[in-house]
Amino acid sequence: MNKKNKKNYKNSSKKFNKPARKPMERITKVSFVKDIRDGLTEKANLIGKINRVVQTGGPTVFVISDGTGSLSLKGFVGPGQRAFPEIEEGDSIKAFVKIEEFQGETEGEIIKINKLSESENKDFLKSIENIEKERATILPPEFLVKDKILDKLRDLFIKAATEIRLAIIQDRPIIVRHHNDADGYSSGFSLERAILPLIEEQHGSEKAAWEFFQRAPCQAPFYELDDSIRDTANSLRNVAKFSNKMPLVIIADNGSSEQDLMAIKQGKIHGADFIVIDHHGFDKDVISPEVKVHINPFLVGEDGSDFSAGMLCTEIARFINPKVKNISQIPAMAGFADMIQLGNPKVMEQYLKIAEKEGYTKELLSDISLVIDYVSTRVRFMEVREYIEVLFGEPREKQKKLVELMAPYIRDLNAKGLAMGKSNAQQEKLGKITLQIVEIDKTFPGFGFYPRPGRAIEMVHEDLQSEKGITSLVTAGIMNTAITLRATDEANFSVHDLIEFIKKKSPDSFVNGGGHKNAGSINFLPYKKDEVVKLLKEFIKER
Amino acid sequence: MNKKNKKNYKNSSKKFNKPARKPMERITKVSFVKDIRDGLTEKANLIGKINRVVQTGGPTVFVISDGTGSLSLKGFVGPGQRAFPEIEEGDSIKAFVKIEEFQGETEGEIIKINKLSESENKDFLKSIENIEKERATILPPEFLVKDKILDKLRDLFIKAATEIRLAIIQDRPIIVRHHNDADGYSSGFSLERAILPLIEEQHGSEKAAWEFFQRAPCQAPFYELDDSIRDTANSLRNVAKFSNKMPLVIIADNGSSEQDLMAIKQGKIHGADFIVIDHHGFDKDVISPEVKVHINPFLVGEDGSDFSAGMLCTEIARFINPKVKNISQIPAMAGFADMIQLGNPKVMEQYLKIAEKEGYTKELLSDISLVIDYVSTRVRFMEVREYIEVLFGEPREKQKKLVELMAPYIRDLNAKGLAMGKSNAQQEKLGKITLQIVEIDKTFPGFGFYPRPGRAIEMVHEDLQSEKGITSLVTAGIMNTAITLRATDEANFSVHDLIEFIKKKSPDSFVNGGGHKNAGSINFLPYKKDEVVKLLKEFIKER
Amino acid sequence: MNKKNKKNYKNSSKKFNKPARKPMERITKVSFVKDIRDGLTEKANLIGKINRVVQTGGPTVFVISDGTGSLSLKGFVGPGQRAFPEIEEGDSIKAFVKIEEFQGETEGEIIKINKLSESENKDFLKSIENIEKERATILPPEFLVKDKILDKLRDLFIKAATEIRLAIIQDRPIIVRHHNDADGYSSGFSLERAILPLIEEQHGSEKAAWEFFQRAPCQAPFYELDDSIRDTANSLRNVAKFSNKMPLVIIADNGSSEQDLMAIKQGKIHGADFIVIDHHGFDKDVISPEVKVHINPFLVGEDGSDFSAGMLCTEIARFINPKVKNISQIPAMAGFADMIQLGNPKVMEQYLKIAEKEGYTKELLSDISLVIDYVSTRVRFMEVREYIEVLFGEPREKQKKLVELMAPYIRDLNAKGLAMGKSNAQQEKLGKITLQIVEIDKTFPGFGFYPRPGRAIEMVHEDLQSEKGITSLVTAGIMNTAITLRATDEANFSVHDLIEFIKKKSPDSFVNGGGHKNAGSINFLPYKKDEVVKLLKEFIKER
Repeated sequence: MNKKNKKNYKNSSKKFNKPARKPMERITKVSFVKDIRDGLTEKANLIGKINRVVQTGGPTVFVISDGTGSLSLKGFVGPGQRAFPEIEEGDSIKAFVKIEEFQGETEGEIIKINKLSESENKDFLKSIENIEKERATILPPEFLVKDKILDKLRDLFIKAATEIRLAIIQDRPIIVRHHNDADGYSSGFSLERAILPLIEEQHGSEKAAWEFFQRAPCQAPFYELDDSIRDTANSLRNVAKFSNKMPLVIIADNGSSEQDLMAIKQGKIHGADFIVIDHHGFDKDVISPEVKVHINPFLVGEDGSDFSAGMLCTEIARFINPKVKNISQIPAMAGFADMIQLGNPKVMEQYLKIAEKEGYTKELLSDISLVIDYVSTRVRFMEVREYIEVLFGEPREKQKKLVELMAPYIRDLNAKGLAMGKSNAQQEKLGKITLQIVEIDKTFPGFGFYPRPGRAIEMVHEDLQSEKGITSLVTAGIMNTAITLRATDEANFSVHDLIEFIKKKSPDSFVNGGGHKNAGSINFLPYKKDEVVKLLKEFIKER
Repeated sequence: MNKKNKKNYKNSSKKFNKPARKPMERITKVSFVKDIRDGLTEKANLIGKINRVVQTGGPTVFVISDGTGSLSLKGFVGPGQRAFPEIEEGDSIKAFVKIEEFQGETEGEIIKINKLSESENKDFLKSIENIEKERATILPPEFLVKDKILDKLRDLFIKAATEIRLAIIQDRPIIVRHHNDADGYSSGFSLERAILPLIEEQHGSEKAAWEFFQRAPCQAPFYELDDSIRDTANSLRNVAKFSNKMPLVIIADNGSSEQDLMAIKQGKIHGADFIVIDHHGFDKDVISPEVKVHINPFLVGEDGSDFSAGMLCTEIARFINPKVKNISQIPAMAGFADMIQLGNPKVMEQYLKIAEKEGYTKELLSDISLVIDYVSTRVRFMEVREYIEVLFGEPREKQKKLVELMAPYIRDLNAKGLAMGKSNAQQEKLGKITLQIVEIDKTFPGFGFYPRPGRAIEMVHEDLQSEKGITSLVTAGIMNTAITLRATDEANFSVHDLIEFIKKKSPDSFVNGGGHKNAGSINFLPYKKDEVVKLLKEFIKER
Repeated sequence: MNKKNKKNYKNSSKKFNKPARKPMERITKVSFVKDIRDGLTEKANLIGKINRVVQTGGPTVFVISDGTGSLSLKGFVGPGQRAFPEIEEGDSIKAFVKIEEFQGETEGEIIKINKLSESENKDFLKSIENIEKERATILPPEFLVKDKILDKLRDLFIKAATEIRLAIIQDRPIIVRHHNDADGYSSGFSLERAILPLIEEQHGSEKAAWEFFQRAPCQAPFYELDDSIRDTANSLRNVAKFSNKMPLVIIADNGSSEQDLMAIKQGKIHGADFIVIDHHGFDKDVISPEVKVHINPFLVGEDGSDFSAGMLCTEIARFINPKVKNISQIPAMAGFADMIQLGNPKVMEQYLKIAEKEGYTKELLSDISLVIDYVSTRVRFMEVREYIEVLFGEPREKQKKLVELMAPYIRDLNAKGLAMGKSNAQQEKLGKITLQIVEIDKTFPGFGFYPRPGRAIEMVHEDLQSEKGITSLVTAGIMNTAITLRATDEANFSVHDLIEFIKKKSPDSFVNGGGHKNAGSINFLPYKKDEVVKLLKEFIKER
């Protein structure tokens, strides 16, 4: 997307399907699919590319697309017999057809059909490309708030939005895969709100919202090879059964790390493409070369703790679809869920004001975020699109009632989880630093328990600070093969340094892990647990 | 349902769809949807409520209902163009239509359509309400057996049956969620047998049996918030994709306890309604205020161990649908599965006689119940409707063969489970009482093992009594975070008292649990296991 | 299938649907369904069996089949009214119909329909049986390679192929259930490649490939009762919803053992039939009496380690469908995956040559097999038909890219698994034999870890031999309730003898298990673990 193109799109109210001007002027009296769908023509000349050939027990159906929409053309020579066998998928054709209505859909009955000559084809492909590009092009809006991170990422936003629009225009399914927490759901939902109406408009049907779009959380905090194999397998099935194209996959609030690389490469082999919108850190950017667009504050010298993925995706949603609705409250909620007020209080203030205008107080946003967190642990990998809509305020009244019912209930669960954690927490002074240990497997009831271990440990960690005023504190939730860690600034901790330390002292532990300086987790072999805990203490003593 | 209405329904052979008399006599020559479906009319005046507006690529489709059935009316002004934009979902209309057959369904082509005037609308809504109420009204049958519990619950049965019929008449989907054991399956199946034929009749299609009905077991022994969120999410999806209504959920052999409350409240926020038919105890009735009907022997001063849920549901099934088939053997089977012969031998005798008339001996019923128990552990949350039909004798011959194959196999599994349990059971004399302990996690092979721990412990408990003649016995199956308990009457045990005892002595154990006096289970934090076992011994000593 | 019939089928290029000659010559001017589908007839006399009666809201639809194909006949007396109520499912009829095209399918409108007289019916059933048999009959091809095992199994191959073709011809769905490893996938895929095109031809539709065929791995190394209950439940649902027939289930690379018996018997009660193609050993052949065909080298006095199931199924695939494509490289891959080069190097050589002709080197085959093994652990019980196609080279270019990406990645995972295993392996000299122990639960990260424990132990076992030159070695991977074992020939080990030994010394361990002499696993109760390990050492000392 070049900046010089921008001036063409002053008129942002143009319809998504309508190209600004007619291509291939050389060929006279050619109609656009879009125009045929709009009104009733009796007969028409069409030029298009064959996307699909379906042999029914009756006629042969050719689905063509000319950049403005898709249309089914029927050829009949005998029941179940292949009509026009010379015309195949991928061919560009011109056809003279009779326009009919069949079972509520507009269709064409082929009177004459021919492949384009080489020069016609060249012209046509150029023109279809232009139409699609033109329709994909956006008029970038102002951001909701002022922030240098947004300014630095603006060009990438334009590129991502254009690619997403182009995928819709080219009838590619879109899969949004997001982090399984409140910021991740916020990211996925704001994109969904922008994309779904465009898909419905493109295909002229509400059903298309289910056929060409899917949003689902990742279970791990990255896009796993497992996710990728499953997405690929499902997409290949849709290609085989419904002649779908391979999807554009948008990974939101995940996707920037080395751990996402294999999954992305795997999907690409089968024809999927990827866009990543993340704010998590990474050691080295191995993702950008593999994806259409990679958006992350760290890529422009900024810090991901200053801007959440839900914030980024809401702004991008407004680039994708200028008419997008019910998302302006999302950045504030997503931001609080990821504690952006600590890193970037100014941007939080601006977003909160916008949310408040929509009737969302800070307390309500926090409650909604709590409910999303809880529900995400119950629905796991399921999409539950309509239920998520309620959580995000569609309709507002149900959202309110649901949050009023569930937030107090979840707060009780959290309070109980905290009490359980405290009942078995051991403190130990290591130099100036207090180490607090909770043996998770021995303390909490196990599978399916809410709050999740990481959250329970966080609460125990915060509670000791506020109750006892301990400011130099590390809290460790110890499991059989992992430890989840929280530290105060004063403790001068670093998850990354700890990992390096253990790797050196005990290579057979096969330690790895990740997270931020003050919050993260490490994994190791189960028989090395005691050794790793010993090393953790040594590490803290030496800080 | 008022008693004064009863006299209208002497003629129980009336068809489900046919109202007894014509409403809105003021409006002349109005046809009922039902009448149009019955024969072939060329043109007709209809009055109805718009349930759904679907914009196809061709005509606009308005689905109307007038209390006697539903009909699709098509309006066409141009392909994909909204016809009669002034007519919206929820409006009441009168229409003059041409009746057509399209793809095997009767439809109407709109010649004229108008919203009703305010006064017409008022009349119509009153009349539709009357028609629906009239069709929902039942002529209560005699019970299969004589029992005071049934007599006391009779009015609630009438209310529940009427509500269920009304839901069917109003095209609401019905979800039956039942306990995951033989009594629970019996409850679910007898309701299914009554409801499915009415749904098929209402919609005039066999397909409707899948679109408007679902039966599935709960995994936990109550209707969990998880179940509720998933049911809600699926129902919201069906609302969005198929314009379904929100369901009526019948919770059977579960649902009366405080643990079901949040789930029911959650569903109600989204528009679901609930009926509970249970026989389990509860501390306080918090359910009645939240549901349409709450049926439980305890609500009328009786005891749930005197009547099983499968018995209750079979009797209610006969209220819902007087023509219900193949359920009269169910109460005996359900009753034996829940040991009702101990609490209420008279009623068991009567039900057994009825079952024997149908060719079901006590042994056969016990074998069927064994197979249901086993199959329920294999199919878990899946509905497997047709497989369950075979288990309940549709057809009888297959049921017989299946039980002959599987019952001996399952008895062998049980025998092996008993032998395993005995091999690691420790007895200890505590005062007059013998405490028998089996460490479940160390004794049985683990995940997926049949019999389930609770059943295995029960067998070990019974075996020691019969083998050694120990009459004052408590058997405890100890797991990492739970203990399952069985006691003889002579042991003077009480699960509830034990829970109170531990709560007092060791609040940090976070103990809770439930069940009956002599059979139940308790949960606690894993690191408190040894302390809880010590307290269990103290508790027994002190009895 | 008698050998004397063979001479009739010299012309192997005959079309699958076309019988060689016309039956029932007595009845004049009768058309075959197949002929009607081929061209456009206006009116026709048909003779057929009613497979299905569907009452729509419009006409009554009778689906007939005459051995050459299926056709829908419509009778109309009024919307939703049952036409020709005297004609029922299972009846044989003659009909005079008008041939029409409706929604792309050829259909007949009934002008006249009558049940056949008793003598006509007898003739017809005989003729339909002959047509079906004739179409099912095969002209057995030459084998791809020369091997006495194949020669001995030839007649069983013919029988199996004929039964499979007959099932397709009779519109029975086919379910292929295979072992969840590379040999199992090879078996399933080669059968799929032969069967799918015949199903598509039979039903004249691509959709049929999903309606009448399913392939999926078993999770356990046998066809469990769970699998059988689920397959049955799904099939019964398809019978109820779509009037399908009960399936023919082909169990491949599993199925020959006593552990498969209950599952097969269970399925048969509901009308499923079974064919087993396996090469695993068994104590006693209890399967043959229960299945249509049972193929296993052990049944003809040969050894299963000399021929893999993937090899067997590829050869059978060529019997089922002489035009089967893209499978000649499979035997080499399957063979290497199951180490057939050790037992039968000659056959491996021949198959490898064939694979090399197709451009598959030994290295590539080994890499593909590695990727299949990995993917199988990720997709678990899902079919992922199209993804599996890519793994097997459809298209070749994608297969190559995928293997190039994933094989090195998986080799790294394996290398890491080996290093982890070695880091915690303990060796102990017991007489002349070295026992190497790895405590799996303490050594590997747990659920979802790749490589799977069995594979990791195998690598540790091989590594010690090659690194330290230890030739008399037993390696034991110890879990809470199981031990996986590998032994060298020199160690004179036997998993079966070990099981007998422990059974005698410690009956309360409830030990069982299986596998080969030098590779297998045993299960026991968790509290007996230490005792079992002690007995394992005793057993080794005594060898």
